[in-house]
Amino acid sequence: MGETYRVGLLGFGTVGAAFAELLEARADAVVPITGLRPRLSGVLTRSRGDFDRILAESDLIVELIGGVDPAREYVLRAMQAGKHVVSANKLLLAQHGEELWRAAREHGVQLRFEGAVAGVVPVIRVLQETLAAAHVERIHGIVNGTTNFILSEMARGGMSYADALERAQQLGYAEADPSDDVTGRDAAAKMAILARLAFSTPVHLDQVTYEGIEQITTDDVAFAHDLGLGLKLIGTAERVDGGISVRVHPAFLYPGHPLASINGPFNAVTIESQAITEVTLSGPGAGGAQTASAVLGDVISAMMPPASVPETTATLAIVDDVASAFYLAMEVDDRPGVLAQVAEVLGRQGASVKSVIQTGLGERARLVMVLHPLLESRLYAAVEEVSRMPFMRAHPRAIRVLDEEFSA
Amino acid sequence: MGETYRVGLLGFGTVGAAFAELLEARADAVVPITGLRPRLSGVLTRSRGDFDRILAESDLIVELIGGVDPAREYVLRAMQAGKHVVSANKLLLAQHGEELWRAAREHGVQLRFEGAVAGVVPVIRVLQETLAAAHVERIHGIVNGTTNFILSEMARGGMSYADALERAQQLGYAEADPSDDVTGRDAAAKMAILARLAFSTPVHLDQVTYEGIEQITTDDVAFAHDLGLGLKLIGTAERVDGGISVRVHPAFLYPGHPLASINGPFNAVTIESQAITEVTLSGPGAGGAQTASAVLGDVISAMMPPASVPETTATLAIVDDVASAFYLAMEVDDRPGVLAQVAEVLGRQGASVKSVIQTGLGERARLVMVLHPLLESRLYAAVEEVSRMPFMRAHPRAIRVLDEEFSA
Repeated sequence: MGETYRVGLLGFGTVGAAFAELLEARADAVVPITGLRPRLSGVLTRSRGDFDRILAESDLIVELIGGVDPAREYVLRAMQAGKHVVSANKLLLAQHGEELWRAAREHGVQLRFEGAVAGVVPVIRVLQETLAAAHVERIHGIVNGTTNFILSEMARGGMSYADALERAQQLGYAEADPSDDVTGRDAAAKMAILARLAFSTPVHLDQVTYEGIEQITTDDVAFAHDLGLGLKLIGTAERVDGGISVRVHPAFLYPGHPLASINGPFNAVTIESQAITEVTLSGPGAGGAQTASAVLGDVISAMMPPASVPETTATLAIVDDVASAFYLAMEVDDRPGVLAQVAEVLGRQGASVKSVIQTGLGERARLVMVLHPLLESRLYAAVEEVSRMPFMRAHPRAIRVLDEEFSA
Repeated sequence: MGETYRVGLLGFGTVGAAFAELLEARADAVVPITGLRPRLSGVLTRSRGDFDRILAESDLIVELIGGVDPAREYVLRAMQAGKHVVSANKLLLAQHGEELWRAAREHGVQLRFEGAVAGVVPVIRVLQETLAAAHVERIHGIVNGTTNFILSEMARGGMSYADALERAQQLGYAEADPSDDVTGRDAAAKMAILARLAFSTPVHLDQVTYEGIEQITTDDVAFAHDLGLGLKLIGTAERVDGGISVRVHPAFLYPGHPLASINGPFNAVTIESQAITEVTLSGPGAGGAQTASAVLGDVISAMMPPASVPETTATLAIVDDVASAFYLAMEVDDRPGVLAQVAEVLGRQGASVKSVIQTGLGERARLVMVLHPLLESRLYAAVEEVSRMPFMRAHPRAIRVLDEEFSA
């Protein structure tokens, strides 16, 4: 059932603990993909574990310590020893990326870091692979979930900055010391990494101009609302006058902008290039489990033969009859009792009405309903029965309705 | 400047021609990434080229013929000859995927197909790599740009289905024979591929239930609008009762759904899994240049050492002073001439006012403006000058405004 692939873990905070749990939970699923079974070979924390021993007993090192020291030294030593490294450490890469990437090239190992920017949103992979040879013009990103959550709360509930920050801390979206997030420094580190990959030019965190959200007032948010604008902390990396600009600042967005609808702790990145117009990637940006998923994706990529579609591991049945919510439009004679008779048939088939619009049109009336989810076979049985009623002037029209809250 | 990497191209339609052009335009950019310079080694069309000769003279084959025959045979023979293959052929993969993926595994070559689903939107790579070991619960996708364009036109302009289709044909978003698109068959093929990758179970095009958009009326779209819903052609692949359901049909979406805001010829895919909640990827789904970009991304991936960050190839200047649109909020004495004096200063610095809201608050007034883009240095100079005016009751607040139409 697959040889063992030994993964050494440095750091056991929120993401580290979530990664250890995920690795164990998904180890079986990794075997058919890679032919190998991943297993934690050791964990280094401040109080336990020995780096040299873990290094010697691992095929790959996952660095989730954060910060520059001692993470930088461990990552370098792992690569010098010929081990692949997966890291989610944006501050390290935004300050020492060139040194580390050079070491990876020199020692012929992989240094993967999807988790460093926008959690499981695969922006690193897309820039490095899908768009490797694209001429990227501009990247816009909401790359800090904490500040996006705070701004969303301020917009939604008229909450003050201080109250929204407190709420973010209660929910675990902000740390006790939130300064890296709210000053824009965390986002600046991520934009430095994205700019480096997009423009193939060295970009250090110190070269990124950033402003945070601490000065934003509820008045700003309210006025903006009057102007039809929403407020986000936006990172920008773009080509300007033969150079580039990399910056982070609060910015108002018009409703049509692809980032305008990104709310709460979500992250999103828009990549623009003439050949592709634009690609937008969004998803949860923070959270231990989400970042751990990105880290596991990187570990699997390091383990696996490139782009192989493994054999199927299941032969799941294809289910034909599923539950869906439905829109139902009927053209009927406008006379008493019609709605009641339709409702009776629907009720008998287990359909429950969410909303109805009845519009009189002289002798006729239009009855438009949205039904709560029911098995499609039952909906079609009900439609068949209703269609034979004498007051029905045309065959009823049924179209499915998709909704997060309704889907099974 | 890099050894040559020989790319044989099968098919020279819209995507094929765009790929040939893109490959030549970006060949220089590929060298630092892969160490190799890609070059077209031959092109096979119905009227010219010889497959065997192209195969012998290529390191990798790009299949953009479309359809099953002779594409299937060419792809198989290329892999048997030990060549990597990149294809954008969804019908081929949705019907003969297992045979082709098995051949790739047996011959130790790569078969990449990002362009087969949702153009340059990197959903294949994300399912195969980022989320390789995730337990995917559900995928929802708008994976056919033609039908999404038609439905968008019907919703936007009250256009009939026939008129919207004609418009799509005029703009090149629909083919002369649009039946694969409007019947939902094209989307069904793409959903079969996504379901296969997500659930690791065999899924054939014939097992996908699909309905198209030919029966949709402007009334349906109008009623739905009254109910607060938008209409899309939605592909679904999800786990149901220990099996899976894979289907394509028109569906109404509530405004909060991540796919509700995808308009025109764009595609988008939402992947749900407990560990990651959901990731949404969107971008242009149709178009020769866009699909060609996806194909080139695959070619580069097949050429390159995995996940290496190449040396920087440029040292672009970091530009500090860029042009931005600004929101400007000022608290002023409510007396005549204030707006004129502020406007004069702004005008002198080259700032042009897009919109103004003035609100009286007893003795005070609030002046909120949105300015067209200007260099930030000039905006700050204007703010500095305005702030010293005697009627200004607090320091003006300036926040950037991001807008597609305004960005440089």
